[in-house]
Amino acid sequence: MKDLDQAETTSDALVIFTPSGKRGRFALGTPILTAARQLGVDLDSVCGGRGICSKCQIQPSYGEFPKFGVTVQDGALTEWNEVEARYKRIRGMIDGRRLGCQAKVQGDVIVDVPPESQVHKQVIRKAASDRVIAMDPATRLLFIEVAEPDMHEPTGDFERVKRALKDQWQVEGVEADLGLLRRLQPALRKGEWKITVALYKGNHDTSHRILDLWPGFHEGPILGLAIDLGSTTIAAHLCDLTDGRVLNSAGLMNPQIRFGEDLMSRVSYAMMNPGGDVEMTTAVRAAIDSLAHTICEEAGVSTQALYELVFVCNPVMHHLLLGIDPVELGQAPFALATSGSMAFPARDLNLSNVNTSARVYVLPCIAGHVGADCAAVALAEEPQHSEDMVLIVDVGTNAEILLGNKTKVLACSSPTGPAFEGAQISSGQRAAPGAIERITIDPVTKEPRFRVIGSELWSDEPGFAEAVGATGVTGICGSGIIEAVAEMRIAGLVDQGGLIGGPDQTGTARCEAEGRTHAYLIHDGSATGGPRITVTQGDIRAIQLAKAALYAGARLLMDEMGVTTVDRVVLAGAFGAHISPRHAMVLGMIPDCELPKVISAGNAAGTGARIALCNRAARDTIEAVVHEIHKVETAIEPRFQEHFVNASAIPNAVDAFPHLDPLPEVSFNTNSGAEGRRRRR
Amino acid sequence: MKDLDQAETTSDALVIFTPSGKRGRFALGTPILTAARQLGVDLDSVCGGRGICSKCQIQPSYGEFPKFGVTVQDGALTEWNEVEARYKRIRGMIDGRRLGCQAKVQGDVIVDVPPESQVHKQVIRKAASDRVIAMDPATRLLFIEVAEPDMHEPTGDFERVKRALKDQWQVEGVEADLGLLRRLQPALRKGEWKITVALYKGNHDTSHRILDLWPGFHEGPILGLAIDLGSTTIAAHLCDLTDGRVLNSAGLMNPQIRFGEDLMSRVSYAMMNPGGDVEMTTAVRAAIDSLAHTICEEAGVSTQALYELVFVCNPVMHHLLLGIDPVELGQAPFALATSGSMAFPARDLNLSNVNTSARVYVLPCIAGHVGADCAAVALAEEPQHSEDMVLIVDVGTNAEILLGNKTKVLACSSPTGPAFEGAQISSGQRAAPGAIERITIDPVTKEPRFRVIGSELWSDEPGFAEAVGATGVTGICGSGIIEAVAEMRIAGLVDQGGLIGGPDQTGTARCEAEGRTHAYLIHDGSATGGPRITVTQGDIRAIQLAKAALYAGARLLMDEMGVTTVDRVVLAGAFGAHISPRHAMVLGMIPDCELPKVISAGNAAGTGARIALCNRAARDTIEAVVHEIHKVETAIEPRFQEHFVNASAIPNAVDAFPHLDPLPEVSFNTNSGAEGRRRRR
Repeated sequence: MKDLDQAETTSDALVIFTPSGKRGRFALGTPILTAARQLGVDLDSVCGGRGICSKCQIQPSYGEFPKFGVTVQDGALTEWNEVEARYKRIRGMIDGRRLGCQAKVQGDVIVDVPPESQVHKQVIRKAASDRVIAMDPATRLLFIEVAEPDMHEPTGDFERVKRALKDQWQVEGVEADLGLLRRLQPALRKGEWKITVALYKGNHDTSHRILDLWPGFHEGPILGLAIDLGSTTIAAHLCDLTDGRVLNSAGLMNPQIRFGEDLMSRVSYAMMNPGGDVEMTTAVRAAIDSLAHTICEEAGVSTQALYELVFVCNPVMHHLLLGIDPVELGQAPFALATSGSMAFPARDLNLSNVNTSARVYVLPCIAGHVGADCAAVALAEEPQHSEDMVLIVDVGTNAEILLGNKTKVLACSSPTGPAFEGAQISSGQRAAPGAIERITIDPVTKEPRFRVIGSELWSDEPGFAEAVGATGVTGICGSGIIEAVAEMRIAGLVDQGGLIGGPDQTGTARCEAEGRTHAYLIHDGSATGGPRITVTQGDIRAIQLAKAALYAGARLLMDEMGVTTVDRVVLAGAFGAHISPRHAMVLGMIPDCELPKVISAGNAAGTGARIALCNRAARDTIEAVVHEIHKVETAIEPRFQEHFVNASAIPNAVDAFPHLDPLPEVSFNTNSGAEGRRRRR
Repeated sequence: MKDLDQAETTSDALVIFTPSGKRGRFALGTPILTAARQLGVDLDSVCGGRGICSKCQIQPSYGEFPKFGVTVQDGALTEWNEVEARYKRIRGMIDGRRLGCQAKVQGDVIVDVPPESQVHKQVIRKAASDRVIAMDPATRLLFIEVAEPDMHEPTGDFERVKRALKDQWQVEGVEADLGLLRRLQPALRKGEWKITVALYKGNHDTSHRILDLWPGFHEGPILGLAIDLGSTTIAAHLCDLTDGRVLNSAGLMNPQIRFGEDLMSRVSYAMMNPGGDVEMTTAVRAAIDSLAHTICEEAGVSTQALYELVFVCNPVMHHLLLGIDPVELGQAPFALATSGSMAFPARDLNLSNVNTSARVYVLPCIAGHVGADCAAVALAEEPQHSEDMVLIVDVGTNAEILLGNKTKVLACSSPTGPAFEGAQISSGQRAAPGAIERITIDPVTKEPRFRVIGSELWSDEPGFAEAVGATGVTGICGSGIIEAVAEMRIAGLVDQGGLIGGPDQTGTARCEAEGRTHAYLIHDGSATGGPRITVTQGDIRAIQLAKAALYAGARLLMDEMGVTTVDRVVLAGAFGAHISPRHAMVLGMIPDCELPKVISAGNAAGTGARIALCNRAARDTIEAVVHEIHKVETAIEPRFQEHFVNASAIPNAVDAFPHLDPLPEVSFNTNSGAEGRRRRR
């Protein structure tokens, strides 16, 4: 690169890159890739300019460019060469494109770097979330040519690999496990002294680590798993580490449920049963191993291509995943064994369905009750950059709650229990075909209409029965039960205290007696051998407990922040995208807010995991941000109890919801001494 | 510490440390340990000044010290306190000693730091070798007090441990495996927030790693193994990592012998048998694991106290230890998979009889035929610092040979075969009680007298039979066969070509016919059920091959160096200490030299391993030195063949040995066509 101030000579030419606008003068004959590297232009290359990988494709522009003050002649780049011709013939290439390593400067030229040729390309995902993730993965593929051994200047093959990585990729400090060294010599000889390595460098590492190697040029794939390890469900995204594409998403139930449905019951299990923590650790690791197998098999890729796993989880899951007894998390002062981020080999988790050299990164925890999942939500939703006061609730068995703006962010967790995930609900089920996910109840006739997962038709539309014929109507999923209870409240079938009225009180036979309480019949499939789907008084109580815990946590943060309203609410969580904002507010899950300002963010924790998987700098970011987030401990705060009791009413015994239409003032309490005054924990 | 130039005031005092001579002025009340730290005086402490560990013992001197220009008053230090009194009562302490953390400055004082209170103490070992090793181990014990968790300022327990290590020991960047994190919380609570950690930092590491931890104060031991992994024998020293003491030494046969007696036959085994390298790797690792068990059991210590293993070995053993197929070492250009030093967890070697967090360090190799054992010899013998031209031969199945002085060092290896270790010798055995280790033959009567391991008596002394009664005379060890063959040559029983004369030619019935050749009877134990111990013509041939290879390697280095004589010869090797210099020279194993300048150095490779185990800086040293050593490849050098053929004669067909008495000019070659002209490889 020549100094731009230097007088223009006939022996060099101006090269301008778009979209970066970087420019410099280069000697005629300089490859475009070389020019890009010298200017720091983000132009990808795996093979290091050998015309093998095609990652460095560029698009030259010809003609007059007054904006840049240059004219690009037809001969501004060298002629199309054999390497490019062969590549295009065999693999295909968009017309007008050139390989940056082959095309050489012959005159002033303007070169566009298309998005797919940028290393730090931004990937926009529609399906999982609209998040834009800049790629900066910890693992990447590098092709190198290694010097052959010389008996008279003896060095090890590995030492010459390190030299090649330094000379060809400016990579210093390279390590490899014994298993890789074992494979090195045959690979070098098979590849005729050319190999591709998968090189890993974590955000805290001072050196690089070879995770895998292949003879000759290897295109990948290199994949990673972003795992949201929840108390009830384990969800994972399978991502391509070169471009961030989500190849598959999958989930399964956390097998630890058999040891206790919520976190505290699992901590109790560990406390009461010697070795109980080890049992739970073994169970969850086996489930993750199984999930890794399934998610890869469905995507048609080998588990050996899995080089990185990123975990987000609450503190109890965090400890049980890492093999640490969670007993200290069950009692004040709720001390974490470790709160910092963790990076270690996947073999330490005894996973077999990942590459033997795969690496794990676990996001940092914020406090004993506020975990890496909350950190992941913060990474995805960035409350610390918000102009307005935003409340973010990540709904799960344990709710992670963040409140704040760019001046301050507070966080807490609240034990909502598994009701929102369809557990502890009489007709509850996971979100799968056949599950009721949407429901409305006519305020006059009290008749329901609903939709099930797997069909676009409502239950009162023609063809519904045929459309759901394959699965039938099997139950209610988490978002369905929220809508059902809210609709029952709107239709006057449930009073403020949460009691379901009887047929006489409500005027509908669908409110059936069930022992001393009532249940509302949504769908009777018994004629065709299917289930009778009802919402029971017990279901309402479970939802009341869950939503009261969620709301009380949010209100506690608002007290701490000194605000009585919030500007914006973000509903996140595994099924956060499916929750109807209006129904959530009718239930009193969330504080009053303008309805258009209540937004569903999908699985923000999972998105945070995906960001950390694809972008190493994001790991630094969240490690710094967690230190700025102030944690509020719900378990020891007396005001939490008070908010919880008030929030047991639907929507609330005290707090107003001016943005809601008025709800029916009904009361079904015929025995004011018993059910009505019962206090619940 | 105050500025020395500052005017003396009544509120501070001069503290002078011996033997370092470091001095400074300190405020009255400053603990001696604090003063030592501020001045950079080498005063040990594990507990960080809490009066627990007693490592900081010092000896104050009182009275007039004109040399230092001070008078030390009786009250120069605070009175003996309760902590010291309790320590002395329970554990004992030399009179006049004080604990540096308890004794505080009250006036000018001279303080001696006894050797055992120095961290970097120099340890002199008599038994294994006279080497002085400065202690700078990679693993050390540190006692810390950890802050208790605070719910309102949540941090993980591990983060507070890291903070304590930083505040109390100035240690930054600390990591721990999941298994350690699992044990952290119970240990902190059991130790009431005081724990001791075993902290490791290798010579290339930027961070520290916790290898083990204990509640409260833990005294150790922390131990390491220095392992010389030879083709025929595996020898280990068990060392205390705090003071370098050798607690035990042990060895066993390398079980790989069943796959081939020398290196090239093992490489061939790997080439000819798929999976053969894995078999050999498994065998040698199991042997090391067994040796670790035995050496600890004999010393009465737990294998869990083994935190470090240092290996030295030749390149083939190096690869087979690491699990790398040695096939490339069997053919030019003899490319090592890796030549650099290696540091990795011991679990990568599947060792079970070491601490689960134990670390391995393998010294660097010099070239494809010149291994880490040769590097270890260089570390122990330091030819690069020699004023005179020194030849160092490490005798084993493969001989490592170094020649040089401070201007230049050359190295090669030579395949001597296992004869020197008593293998391939008809009456050969390992050096154990009952083995003949010394022998003389009367030049007139041709009668032998000998000594066996386990008795100080010669075989012609009264009481010999009773003294060796327990074992009997069982065979000849490596140093014994060298003396036997040399003595036979001196006594005229063997001619220059290596032929044993018959009874008529030699005038002794001890030269018995054995087929077409003869054997010399040393001892007939058959009357008492013991063996008949003879030196056969085959034994002589095996020794000739071995010593010719050794000599040819040395001569090749002398050619390369451009010298015809050497100033000094160091005989090293597992049995190097036992070789008689004169007999080695009569055999022509080593070039002619003044006899007093032929020195036995014991197992220099083992000593090098021990130095690297105890001193981290020595690892840096040898890693730098191997790059300065110029390797000579014997396998492709035509002059090696020439030297080898000449050296097959005893002592040599061409080279003169002026420092030897003339040897008998006998010749027993009755058939000049066959045995006499046979060429041997």
